[in-house]
Parts: sequence; structure tokens; C-alpha cells
Amino acid sequence: MPFSAPNDNKPQRTVVYLSDGTAITAETFGKAIMAQFDMPARQVRVPFVDTLEKADKVIAQINAVHEKDGVRPVVFMTLVNNEIVKRINEACNAMVMDMFSMFINPLEAEFGVKSHHRVGRFSDVSKSDTYRARIDAINYSLMHDDGQTSRDLSQADVILIGVSRSGKTPTSLYLAMQHGLKVANYPLIPEDFERMQLPPALMPYKSKLFGLTIQPERLSEIRNERRPNSRYADLANCRAEVAAAESMMRRAGVRWLSTTTKSIEEIATTILQELELHQADL
Amino acid sequence: MPFSAPNDNKPQRTVVYLSDGTAITAETFGKAIMAQFDMPARQVRVPFVDTLEKADKVIAQINAVHEKDGVRPVVFMTLVNNEIVKRINEACNAMVMDMFSMFINPLEAEFGVKSHHRVGRFSDVSKSDTYRARIDAINYSLMHDDGQTSRDLSQADVILIGVSRSGKTPTSLYLAMQHGLKVANYPLIPEDFERMQLPPALMPYKSKLFGLTIQPERLSEIRNERRPNSRYADLANCRAEVAAAESMMRRAGVRWLSTTTKSIEEIATTILQELELHQADL
Repeated sequence: MPFSAPNDNKPQRTVVYLSDGTAITAETFGKAIMAQFDMPARQVRVPFVDTLEKADKVIAQINAVHEKDGVRPVVFMTLVNNEIVKRINEACNAMVMDMFSMFINPLEAEFGVKSHHRVGRFSDVSKSDTYRARIDAINYSLMHDDGQTSRDLSQADVILIGVSRSGKTPTSLYLAMQHGLKVANYPLIPEDFERMQLPPALMPYKSKLFGLTIQPERLSEIRNERRPNSRYADLANCRAEVAAAESMMRRAGVRWLSTTTKSIEEIATTILQELELHQADL
Repeated sequence: MPFSAPNDNKPQRTVVYLSDGTAITAETFGKAIMAQFDMPARQVRVPFVDTLEKADKVIAQINAVHEKDGVRPVVFMTLVNNEIVKRINEACNAMVMDMFSMFINPLEAEFGVKSHHRVGRFSDVSKSDTYRARIDAINYSLMHDDGQTSRDLSQADVILIGVSRSGKTPTSLYLAMQHGLKVANYPLIPEDFERMQLPPALMPYKSKLFGLTIQPERLSEIRNERRPNSRYADLANCRAEVAAAESMMRRAGVRWLSTTTKSIEEIATTILQELELHQADL
């Protein structure tokens, strides 16, 4: 979470992500909105505001920030308790973006049912099957990181392959954490290139394979941070490894994507789309 | 992502999360909204809709779903290209929740600046310092999982401690992945309980310590899934370990929380709040 430092030269806007839960929803959404503006802003997350007492405390703080900033703060808010919403709307000297009401009221009309105004999509989630599956997926992906074991590969939802430092580990953990997928990852190493074949342990699971590749220049940069001036990081070596890995994947008919300019989220979304995993079709 | 299975007995509503980026923002927000309704819905994520051609294809699919469902789908959409937004609003037989326009227009007025309508908060993020720090944090947290090493603990932002299976690993990885924090985690083990002292390697870093605890009954359940009928999973042993860990943390003045009924997100948010890490104060 990069909070920009206060800048005394210009009016500094404060943006508050406020919720009765973790405030992750308010923050994810608010940040996407704020990214549409080239404007420095101090961003603050305020979670777990689930009583009027806590709301009053936060209101006092926000109003003090208004005084100090000289401009009113912007509050992105996901609150289900109508009493707390009302209090904040009435007492807060801020531009309040009440994200729930704006969408829930029209949806109540559309669905012909009332929303239940219950706090937190996460509450007491720890015993749900989905949640347990997610924890299992994280453990599985950790145990199957970097080709540590070829046991239980039949249980994998996806097996990522690619040269060292192509982005396999963060992508595996993200897919496990956010999508509950069991993801193994296997490095392609010099022995594989010499044999010109995928690691034998992976052969029975071809349909689960997905390749990550990367521009040799970028790979060399990343590897140089780890092991400066090594053969491992050398540009010519990186070029040879990437070329060998790509030709190996092409021959084996393995889908792949380049991670060079992509975030973990973009890589993961593309993999899900390609494998049509956990993606209901329209 | 738990997609509810279609149910032929009642009108089935389809909810679409549509974006020119990963659709993570649309989905996070839309799911939080839908969680306010006790209503089965088929949920579909449609990412990377960044051209009119792709939009037309999706519109045709959504309209076909409308025909099939007999009720109009609900579309939560984060799109920055006005032409695509317009096309979807005009041609889509759905209830379209245009999340960006609803918030961006009032904010343009408030800030007195135009938004730049650029796609994707993630685009070309891979070279940014924040993004690199996040990848470094993931690597750090992986290398410092489960007390694997006490090297470089001075670099840790947080060091989690707790008995085996109290939730340290998923929490560490989540904090690294989502918040770019370097998180080490250390198990409290029988040797520590006998000595009645925290692991000596951690002593210089007391201010970074945060404890996770858990109800012995739940701990026994979780451990039984791993090693059925073991001493490790035995309820009496779990009770003794948890009591010893808690008394050790209390004596050492280490803050802790119980993970028993909490999700990873709730645990992580609480830790951030307690440690006031990456949290600008209001």
C-alpha cells in the first residue's frame, strides 16, 4: 500500500476507505477510482467500524483532517448498518461515497427482495468448505513450489513451468490464495534443455501445464539482482534458456504467456481464462 | 470462487463482472454487494474487454443468457473507455451497474480535474518500485516460513509466532502478497515450552512479534486432518500447547489474536491495525 507522503506545498487531499469489515472492498474499489486521477492523495484504511461509538470517533478524526487539509476528505465506504451510515452522512464533513446504498437499493428493486444488511462477507468464514479448500490450496502450492516434489501432481489444478525467475512462485501462491487452486510449479533447468524434453514427471499431466516466459533482457536484470555477474544472470545464457524453454513448450503443445510487463494479477487472470478454470462460461 | 450451480427449478440470475482489466475490482465489489442478498446467482468474470469487437462479442453472449435465464443478467462493470461503456449501455439487455461513471463524475467535479480514462491500475506495473518490493516481500516471506532461517530477521516488517497450524503461513503470504510486507513466521514448539521462553533468535526483535493463537478444539480438528489420532492432534496436547504459548506471549508482552473464527483477510487487517504498519493515521 503506497501512501504518498504529505506535501506541504499544495492542498493535500485525504482519501479514507471505511468499513465495518476489513475495508478491503472499499479500498480495492476506491484505489481503482483514484488511479483515474493524477492527483496526490493521502490514503487511509479504517476497518472494523461496526458500532456508533467507533463511528463517532472516526467522524471526529475525519473532521479534524478536513480542518487541517483545508479541503474535505473523500470517504469510500462499505457499511451495512443503516444507523451508522446515517450518522456518517449527517456528521461527517467529507465527500462520502456510500458505495453499498448506491447499488443495493436498485438491486433490491430488481430482485424483488430485501438485502439482509449483515456485516462482512468474511464473518465466520473459517469453517466453510470454500475457506478450507483455500487453505489446503495454499499448503499444496507451497509444498509443490519450485519442483520440490512430484508426489500428488494428479491433484494439481494447474502446473506452471518456466525458467528460473519467470514468475512461477508468486503466480502459484496468488492463484492458491485468491482462487483456491492447487498450483504446482516446476522450473525448466539445463538438464531439461539438454534432453530437449519437459521434465518426465510432468508428462502424465500435459493438459494441466501452463508455461511462463519472459524477455531475456528483463530476466537477466532480475537474475543480476540475485546473483550479480554470474553465468546464471548472463544475458547470452538467459537468451539461450528462454529460447530453449519456448521451443520445448511449442513442441509439446503447452500454452504459455510472457510475464515481462504483467502484474501477478494479470498473469493469474490470463491463466484462469486460458484454462477456463473456475470460470463459468457466459 | 464459489460459483453456485445452476438450479433449474427457479429463475436463475446471472451476475457478470466485466472489465477492460483483470475484473478483480468489479468482482471484489460485486461479490460484496451480492453477499447482501440471499439469492442464488451464477457468477461469471469477464476480463480484458478492451476493444469494441470484444465488447460486441460479450454483449451477444449476455443477451443470449438473458433469453435463456428469462430474467436479465446483472453486470458489474469497471470500464474506462467511454465508447465501450456507451456500446454496452445501449446494446446490452442487462441491468448494467457502471461502477466507474457513478463515482468518477462526481469526483471530477470535486477535484476540479478530469480523470484520464486510462485502462488498468496494473498496466506495466511490473517495473515499478512498489511492485518489485512486493515480489521481494513474497520471496522473503517464503524463505522465512516456518522458522526455516533466522538470517536477515532484522529486515522483517513482522514476525508471526504461534503453535503449529495456528494460521501463520497463509497470513504471512497474504501480508506479503497484498501489502508488500516482509513477514517471517516462527513456530512455537515443545522445546520452547519446556524452556518457557520464546525462541532465542527472536529476542532482539520483540517489537516486531505478533502472536496467533487458536481454540484448542479447533486446533485439534485441523491437526487431525493432517495426522489422524496422533499425539500432535490430541486435544489434551493441543490444550497444553495453546496454554503454554499464550502464557509465554503474555509474559513476554507480545500482542496476539485468536484466529479461530477469522479469515486470512481479517487476521491480516487486525495485525496491520495493531502494528500500525503501512497505515497512515487519520
